[in-house]
Amino acid sequence: MLERALAAPHVSREAYAAREPAVRVGLINAQFDLRTSDAPVLLLLAGDDRIGVTEAVQLLHEWLDARHLDTHIFDQPTPEEREHPDYWRYWNALPARGRIGIFVGGWPIDVIGARAAERLETPGFERALQQAREFERTLAAEGTLLLKFWVHTEAAERARRLERARREPGRNWRVEPEDWSLHEIFSRLEDDVRHLLSVTDEPWAPWHVLDGRDDRTRDLALVETILTVLRERLDTGRPMQVPAPPLSLLPPRPQRLASVDLKPARQGVDYGARLDAAQARLAELSRRAREVGQATVLVFEGWDAAGKGGSIRRITKALSVRDYRVVPIAAPDESERAHHWLWRYWRQLPRAGTMLILDRSWYGRVLVERVEGYADTAAWHRAYAEIRAFEMQLVERGHVLLKFWLHIDPAEQLARFQARESTPYKKYKITDDDYRNRARWDDYVTAAEEMFARTDIPQAPWHIVAMNDKKAGRINILESICAALAARLYDQGVKT
Amino acid sequence: MLERALAAPHVSREAYAAREPAVRVGLINAQFDLRTSDAPVLLLLAGDDRIGVTEAVQLLHEWLDARHLDTHIFDQPTPEEREHPDYWRYWNALPARGRIGIFVGGWPIDVIGARAAERLETPGFERALQQAREFERTLAAEGTLLLKFWVHTEAAERARRLERARREPGRNWRVEPEDWSLHEIFSRLEDDVRHLLSVTDEPWAPWHVLDGRDDRTRDLALVETILTVLRERLDTGRPMQVPAPPLSLLPPRPQRLASVDLKPARQGVDYGARLDAAQARLAELSRRAREVGQATVLVFEGWDAAGKGGSIRRITKALSVRDYRVVPIAAPDESERAHHWLWRYWRQLPRAGTMLILDRSWYGRVLVERVEGYADTAAWHRAYAEIRAFEMQLVERGHVLLKFWLHIDPAEQLARFQARESTPYKKYKITDDDYRNRARWDDYVTAAEEMFARTDIPQAPWHIVAMNDKKAGRINILESICAALAARLYDQGVKT
Repeated sequence: MLERALAAPHVSREAYAAREPAVRVGLINAQFDLRTSDAPVLLLLAGDDRIGVTEAVQLLHEWLDARHLDTHIFDQPTPEEREHPDYWRYWNALPARGRIGIFVGGWPIDVIGARAAERLETPGFERALQQAREFERTLAAEGTLLLKFWVHTEAAERARRLERARREPGRNWRVEPEDWSLHEIFSRLEDDVRHLLSVTDEPWAPWHVLDGRDDRTRDLALVETILTVLRERLDTGRPMQVPAPPLSLLPPRPQRLASVDLKPARQGVDYGARLDAAQARLAELSRRAREVGQATVLVFEGWDAAGKGGSIRRITKALSVRDYRVVPIAAPDESERAHHWLWRYWRQLPRAGTMLILDRSWYGRVLVERVEGYADTAAWHRAYAEIRAFEMQLVERGHVLLKFWLHIDPAEQLARFQARESTPYKKYKITDDDYRNRARWDDYVTAAEEMFARTDIPQAPWHIVAMNDKKAGRINILESICAALAARLYDQGVKT
Repeated sequence: MLERALAAPHVSREAYAAREPAVRVGLINAQFDLRTSDAPVLLLLAGDDRIGVTEAVQLLHEWLDARHLDTHIFDQPTPEEREHPDYWRYWNALPARGRIGIFVGGWPIDVIGARAAERLETPGFERALQQAREFERTLAAEGTLLLKFWVHTEAAERARRLERARREPGRNWRVEPEDWSLHEIFSRLEDDVRHLLSVTDEPWAPWHVLDGRDDRTRDLALVETILTVLRERLDTGRPMQVPAPPLSLLPPRPQRLASVDLKPARQGVDYGARLDAAQARLAELSRRAREVGQATVLVFEGWDAAGKGGSIRRITKALSVRDYRVVPIAAPDESERAHHWLWRYWRQLPRAGTMLILDRSWYGRVLVERVEGYADTAAWHRAYAEIRAFEMQLVERGHVLLKFWLHIDPAEQLARFQARESTPYKKYKITDDDYRNRARWDDYVTAAEEMFARTDIPQAPWHIVAMNDKKAGRINILESICAALAARLYDQGVKT
């Protein structure tokens, strides 16, 4: 791929002058048309030629309308970025529909950088490439127009440039000291770069290698490629087709919910004492978590009125307000709808040492959105793999992730709805929707069972909690959190 | 103020039970009505009783609808927060219209904390209080409903609580080790706290002291105060009146623009060589700035077609893309309109070591918004003081701030409009608006002259640049930036 790009003849001054006006006007017009389309555009610029990348970005800044352009330069991760999974900074920076995002550097450079620092042996390198492929696939499947450019100048030519800059420092001030070490890295890792370019080159996330030896050739290839692809997307209105990953076979008729024992627990248990003990333990564990920077994500799903809110309050009562955030998930707002469906969850992830408590979650995609038809079949089919990839990033980063399904039976739910309606400040919690959802109980059971089966990863299994007996259920939840957090802290050598 | 709050009798269990339902329903309803109003609500909770503050916040989380609530806990500033002026984190976190923000801790605690760490002698303490007043005033003047609560428990009672927790650690797990040092600080600085509460207590930003000795008394005072004030604002629809700060007298008929020499510079200057030299110097300085974390803000204002874009490109050509961001300022979008008018500028401020280049800026408030009537007279009058306070925060934080007015005469502007219209990719830059603005030339001169006179602070004076001769103007700009940056780096002992 690298050689092919260097085989084409260079663009002459005359040819450039002849082709510039059309592509420049074309780009501005395409960007204007894009604003009312549903496509986010993501241009990734990277390469072994740092100055070439810089100049290419500056050309785009000059030719495009900067008001509808979001440029992000990804350098070494900041301390805050290091507290999160690797792709957090990319998710946060994704362009909205109708906008163009320019990412400079990005995940391919992270992978090469980790390889250069010898933090990645071959299995880790392959795993990192797989993550890159998963990320690019999910963006494209949700409609992002993704173009990747690699500015390439061969090692010998790079060395000549650096030598010239050393001899004439006043005239070659764009060369920086770090360019020497970049030159060394890219020379040493040329095979890894080739491998990366080849395994992450897909129709929905293609690489375009730009010839870094000649400015005009590089620039024209960049802008003409963008214009062609962007124009086609705008004119056809059709996003790139991304084949769906195969869905694995499910075990026949999983029935986890049907087997939950909803009978009240045995008499004689002192709930007050157990609740106190569990809260005291959680308070202690959360302080240790704060000290060592351990992040936790709690996901609460389950039937309406199953007791999510009450359970969450028993948890937060044991915590200092600075150590947690409760985020209720409702229908996405305008800005959330303008992004990939997972974007709003990535943005909520907890900082080091804190706990994110989600009252409903990304699982809405395969529950309410599936049952009510808000997501089409391909979208919620795809979501299982997307969710697994997302959660794997959380647990690989070291976060504790716990997923609770709060379970009650239909009769208990009805009794609770009726009780709510007679409490003035709880009335607003009951809407016609709640009664409509009751009518689709069996559809939700089907969706939940498939969700358990497809997203029950070893590091983050589903906890199905019997909640007909609220007090017993809450203690069960608190004790599960304490156990998981204590185990994780123990793994890190923290005494609790 | 502290004693007064403790003088009231405590609320009995019966009285609490009787008053709870009404205030709880009232709060939920008020929050619902708020969503369609134009008021952002900011509740600040702080105090010498940390556990009391925590419990008060948790009560609000329980009683209000969390989907329309933005809680921010302000602890020690993060590394990123330290790169910015002190109030950056508060500006970033401001609630939008229709939402309730809960700030825990916040600027009053920062001031007390700095005082406790002996980083603030009396003049610094008074300056910090003045900044707090300025911040609260500008929020309220733009319509924020601001309520501040101080949870107070006297030192003797705090000491008794800590002793109890030491004796019975299993039962008093809410007490943390840091509570001992907080107790010590608040006991030692009680006079400073009294002074702070008293000088920052204004009708538009009142303090309410809550009695931390009794949960029911504290909670009921909190929610009843919020409900009363919120209900009144919703029912009258009128924000609190904030008296305008007096405008100082202007010198008679300032005429800085009329005295600019717009004749072309003398012949025989080698522009190419001077441009090269200035860019090489800027490249070098920006690398030093990156190394030492020096941030820079460049503001470009001036007539349409005066050459802002071309000047900015000559600057960015000398920089690495990771070291700068160019932000063009146009009409505010929906989310920007839902916030204080300065909010969108605060969000753009540069990280340590980088340069923010603004193509138009906050000065739009006293230029286009004044001339076209988008801001009412009181708003743009107030803006001079708001801008000075904002810029003082930048320069006090150590940022380099340069403000350029690019000046041409009407004949030159007309010639440039006509030239643009015959260049295909520049055509989109010319609209009917541009011709309309020309008709108001004299109004813009009046506005610009008043702006120069009122915002020309010593640390960041206006640079008025003659741009009829573009090449000379650009070199003037580049050399001014180099001079200012070099001087600032020199002050820090950096060799350049």
